[in-house]
Amino acid sequence: MSPAAPHLRLHAPIVLPCDPDCSVLRDAVVDVVADGRIAYCGPATEAPEAPEGTPVRRCSGILLPGLVNAHAHTPMTPLRGIGSDLPLPRWLREAIWPAEAKLRPEDIGAGMLLGSVEMLRHGVTTSTEMYFHGEHMAEAVLAAGSRMLFAAGILDVPGWDWRKLVDEQSAWIDADGRFLGPAHRIELCYGPHSAYALPPEALALVGEEAQRRDALVHIHVAEHAEEDAEQRAAHGSVPRMLDHLGVLDGRVAMAHAVHLDDEDIALLAAKGVGVAHCPGSNAKLASGTARLVDLLRAGIPVGLGTDGPASNDDLDVLEEARLAALLARLSTADSSALTAAQALLLATRGSADALGRDDIGALEPGRWADIVHVAVDDPAFATGLAVPDDQVLANLIWAAGSRLVRDVWVAGEQVVADGESTRVDRAGAQAAVRAVSARLHG
Amino acid sequence: MSPAAPHLRLHAPIVLPCDPDCSVLRDAVVDVVADGRIAYCGPATEAPEAPEGTPVRRCSGILLPGLVNAHAHTPMTPLRGIGSDLPLPRWLREAIWPAEAKLRPEDIGAGMLLGSVEMLRHGVTTSTEMYFHGEHMAEAVLAAGSRMLFAAGILDVPGWDWRKLVDEQSAWIDADGRFLGPAHRIELCYGPHSAYALPPEALALVGEEAQRRDALVHIHVAEHAEEDAEQRAAHGSVPRMLDHLGVLDGRVAMAHAVHLDDEDIALLAAKGVGVAHCPGSNAKLASGTARLVDLLRAGIPVGLGTDGPASNDDLDVLEEARLAALLARLSTADSSALTAAQALLLATRGSADALGRDDIGALEPGRWADIVHVAVDDPAFATGLAVPDDQVLANLIWAAGSRLVRDVWVAGEQVVADGESTRVDRAGAQAAVRAVSARLHG
Ligand SMILES: [Zn+2]
Ligand SMILES: [Zn+2]
Repeated sequence: MSPAAPHLRLHAPIVLPCDPDCSVLRDAVVDVVADGRIAYCGPATEAPEAPEGTPVRRCSGILLPGLVNAHAHTPMTPLRGIGSDLPLPRWLREAIWPAEAKLRPEDIGAGMLLGSVEMLRHGVTTSTEMYFHGEHMAEAVLAAGSRMLFAAGILDVPGWDWRKLVDEQSAWIDADGRFLGPAHRIELCYGPHSAYALPPEALALVGEEAQRRDALVHIHVAEHAEEDAEQRAAHGSVPRMLDHLGVLDGRVAMAHAVHLDDEDIALLAAKGVGVAHCPGSNAKLASGTARLVDLLRAGIPVGLGTDGPASNDDLDVLEEARLAALLARLSTADSSALTAAQALLLATRGSADALGRDDIGALEPGRWADIVHVAVDDPAFATGLAVPDDQVLANLIWAAGSRLVRDVWVAGEQVVADGESTRVDRAGAQAAVRAVSARLHG
Repeated sequence: MSPAAPHLRLHAPIVLPCDPDCSVLRDAVVDVVADGRIAYCGPATEAPEAPEGTPVRRCSGILLPGLVNAHAHTPMTPLRGIGSDLPLPRWLREAIWPAEAKLRPEDIGAGMLLGSVEMLRHGVTTSTEMYFHGEHMAEAVLAAGSRMLFAAGILDVPGWDWRKLVDEQSAWIDADGRFLGPAHRIELCYGPHSAYALPPEALALVGEEAQRRDALVHIHVAEHAEEDAEQRAAHGSVPRMLDHLGVLDGRVAMAHAVHLDDEDIALLAAKGVGVAHCPGSNAKLASGTARLVDLLRAGIPVGLGTDGPASNDDLDVLEEARLAALLARLSTADSSALTAAQALLLATRGSADALGRDDIGALEPGRWADIVHVAVDDPAFATGLAVPDDQVLANLIWAAGSRLVRDVWVAGEQVVADGESTRVDRAGAQAAVRAVSARLHG
């Protein structure tokens, strides 16, 4: 690329690159080059001279990397809030499954479009989606301008053929490659639902097929205590069973991982398995609290997932960061168990690491320019920016939250401006979901 | 009042009066009469004919009562976020107390003004404040147009004379009455800090003086396990000690009440003592989770408190409602332990009940017209309003939150319009707090 290539410079009083130390840069810039990657992130005084005519966008707030949702089922937005006061087994049987059975492929696209717009407005630029009808989902993501890891759902239940689901995803990857769309917008992955929803040979086959293609395996593990007790009785533990089946030799990101023993944790660390911690969903569904501090201490890459909008309603990864810190402190009885910096890293770099992606989740040269601008003209930041670094981070995590996200770029393209999508008519996306909801209730 | 008195009618597709059943009214109106009280809340078709010329405000979203914050120390906004990664004892000794020592009376007014504006924008129309320099706080509250229960802080620490603090509050009540300002804007109460910060004779005296004036006693109880263990060793338990001292014979609202045994709970129920549950603060400071479900089952009036913005940063009562539900479900391992309706009632009617106030916290004839309008043009409500009642409530509590508060009235006066204070220049209030913060760090 020539040095005169089209180029964008963002200049802000605070930039949080989400490097491993969670540095707080003052008066800093982020340079984006034409292919949508970051060329420089650092102090303005040390920035390379920008080519003449480079657009410079002055931001009055805080820049940080786009947040990464490490576990979701976003197309369920038309089911949001249904039967939410029922106990878990009745909620699934009486509310969720009957409604899901009525979803048509185009409904899944409508649900994903709205959810993608919603996540972008919350600063979430990438989501990891275990669901079905990936073409409709991909179309929605490309329309919204976000990013997705599509983990094709694989289940062994009546009406579904797990072999066919595995083969279809393998065929898609073989035909189009693992990455679709401009700037690696979509990555194709495998989403075996869980060890309790699939026979061992299915899990082994998924592991093989994924490893052959260097593809991610995204799977629910040890979400509920009872589920895990059954698995333990039968196989030792799900992580150990997956290891025996060879699944952990490839790229694996486990969602939930609430009920792990020390041996499981050591195994995940040894195998480099990622964890998508879902504190909000795990609390709302009364599943428990994952051993976040122990996972981090073991060196396991941990990110944050919202889970689906039917079970944890608002697709807000920054809220999950706050909840992760609250619940880590509560479950360890240690009010300094997780710092604001650690919470922010979970939502960004941590999720990217958990997914085995080194091209998102941080503002670093070579990574995609997925960038969020958080406004500071708010009581949350009334103490000002001329305060110690830890206070800036505390105000962001504990007081501000996603409601202050103003602008979002993905691969250098602005996809949210002043809180609204630049690409999708939000009213139309809402109306489409409302129509699906009406049919589900009809 | 003549039937032609100035009058306001609000008309909305959904009104949540926060009656004990948490009814969801469709196509309903709220009528406000000239003194600022509610005259009617119910279906539009059954509403009395409005006098000619009555202004009718059509609201496109959801109307609910102003939220009530049952425990706060709001003037601490200039301390928000300081030292927040320190363990609790160091945080108090190294960050909070030295900063508080530098606060001047006018700083307390500046902190309260910003916090009041911030709470109003979150739909919180009333807060219960345990702090000092009540005249400066009252001035701020009257300027913002919100409502406050001012529980004058009473402490026995070097530099403070608890007898003088008690006498000053008694003298203020005797001079001006228990209610100050228009429409009962401010109620004067007693705020003995805690049983560990005061000798028994101080607690007994506060009880006597408060009962003589029918004033509320607002006190921290059983927040931290260690603190409570000490009290139990010395006195049985704090509730039992307060009962022996006669304090529970009057109006009492206890903040936190995390570490209670069954006997304590039975005592609070028998004495009609209210509890300000503070789930966010208790999690962030790793204090534990109060036995919310047991408290409610015992018939104790329970509301929600944010605690101060230094320990739980965002003064957002609707967020506390969500946290209360999450933590109740988690701590009981029951995903239906607290419904969205119950969570909403905690934040409104429950807080009013806990404070012994039957004039706020619900949209009922005779109560003050403290009203919040929540916008529904958002993905949170994309399933639409033509869904079952429980889904409307679920969307409000689990997906929407305070970010969608658009308009707020207190005693019938609009104090927030389209998300901004109608009375206070927010930029100026923020700048004043920034100046205090700069001095604290200087
Ligand atoms: Zn899931
Ligand atoms: Zn307190």
